[in-house]
Amino acid sequence: QIREAVAQRFADGPLRGLHAVLTAGPTREPIDPVRYISNRSSGKMGYALAASLQALGARVTLISGPTNLPTPAGVARVDVETAADLLEHSLQLAADAQIFIGAAAVADYRVDAPADEKIKKNDAAMSLALSRNPDVIAAVRERYPDLFVVGFAAETEKLAEHARGKLERKKLDMIAANWVGRGRAFDRDDNALSVFWAGGERELPQASKAAIARDLGALIAERYGARA
Amino acid sequence: QIREAVAQRFADGPLRGLHAVLTAGPTREPIDPVRYISNRSSGKMGYALAASLQALGARVTLISGPTNLPTPAGVARVDVETAADLLEHSLQLAADAQIFIGAAAVADYRVDAPADEKIKKNDAAMSLALSRNPDVIAAVRERYPDLFVVGFAAETEKLAEHARGKLERKKLDMIAANWVGRGRAFDRDDNALSVFWAGGERELPQASKAAIARDLGALIAERYGARA
Repeated sequence: QIREAVAQRFADGPLRGLHAVLTAGPTREPIDPVRYISNRSSGKMGYALAASLQALGARVTLISGPTNLPTPAGVARVDVETAADLLEHSLQLAADAQIFIGAAAVADYRVDAPADEKIKKNDAAMSLALSRNPDVIAAVRERYPDLFVVGFAAETEKLAEHARGKLERKKLDMIAANWVGRGRAFDRDDNALSVFWAGGERELPQASKAAIARDLGALIAERYGARA
Repeated sequence: QIREAVAQRFADGPLRGLHAVLTAGPTREPIDPVRYISNRSSGKMGYALAASLQALGARVTLISGPTNLPTPAGVARVDVETAADLLEHSLQLAADAQIFIGAAAVADYRVDAPADEKIKKNDAAMSLALSRNPDVIAAVRERYPDLFVVGFAAETEKLAEHARGKLERKKLDMIAANWVGRGRAFDRDDNALSVFWAGGERELPQASKAAIARDLGALIAERYGARA
């Protein structure tokens, strides 16, 4: 009976019958077995959005970098570490998805030659050679031209300009941008978003990440419906 | 009455009347406002050892890098982020301590010129210039020659040789060494330690970090007593 009630609730959501794949959290790029390069993403926004899309009736798969968050109820979760892992799982899982949301803070660069043993370093200075990581969301868009693809942008300056540039350059269907740095957004439980799409935008003012995720989920459902 | 019982218990411990300062967890060295270099330390060993020393009667101050661990009951905690922060607080707090334990996985290098704004990078390759961080435990030892100083060593090869070298070079009173890499120690709840001091050593075989921390705390109390 509970199972039927849950199934019924799903059947009633605006995203019923759809599969949404989200990426969330940071990635880690190894320097050696103990050291890595990463970033301040807590994963909270992506996890909250996964729960929101699930509540709207979608089947949701979350591809997550290292976080300390519980998996939202009813959401399938795949754990990854590097940008390369995240790309591989994104391309696989997006094959039967209708909506793809790149909320992970993917490392832009990886270390050229991670060491197998812990590096013993005694020099006063050193230099770490890095190579550009693949752009996950651009790769997913290229492979799946009909997918509804939503990106995120974390900016410290010129938010609208940078976000609109990314929307057009990567051929995204929607982009959600927020300010970062100076204590904003990262590791906090509230957030504000400016959401842009071709010919439109909406401000989601400062609120809890759960509330913002509900509004953003509803907006994704609305724009997905408008496109279909 | 509870307060008195607690005070009585403290008064009975072998470390009664002593102040122990511990460092624990990773440090983070900023690349820009969102990116950083860090390492896989969970902080579990240092936190468990703080609880162990507190149970042995010491007043304990924990200087902690970013972790997701609760502060052990009765322990004072100071949060830090970079190696430079950790050094500053260590030198301050060690001034009235008798025991100093460096369990933090301090970053060996920091980024030369962290950016104030998020770096926009479009190059296929880049290079990150790094400078050697101060050696916290060596600086503490130099400033406070009478302090009982305990170091940790995480090794992927030649454990005893590397650990003994560090013990002598840094003039430590004791060093606790463990194997890392290939799934060992980091982010796990059990651990094994090889402990070395001038003229002695002891193996603490694989056990929960709480059990290992109790044994190591007792060994620190024993060696501190032998020296005093």
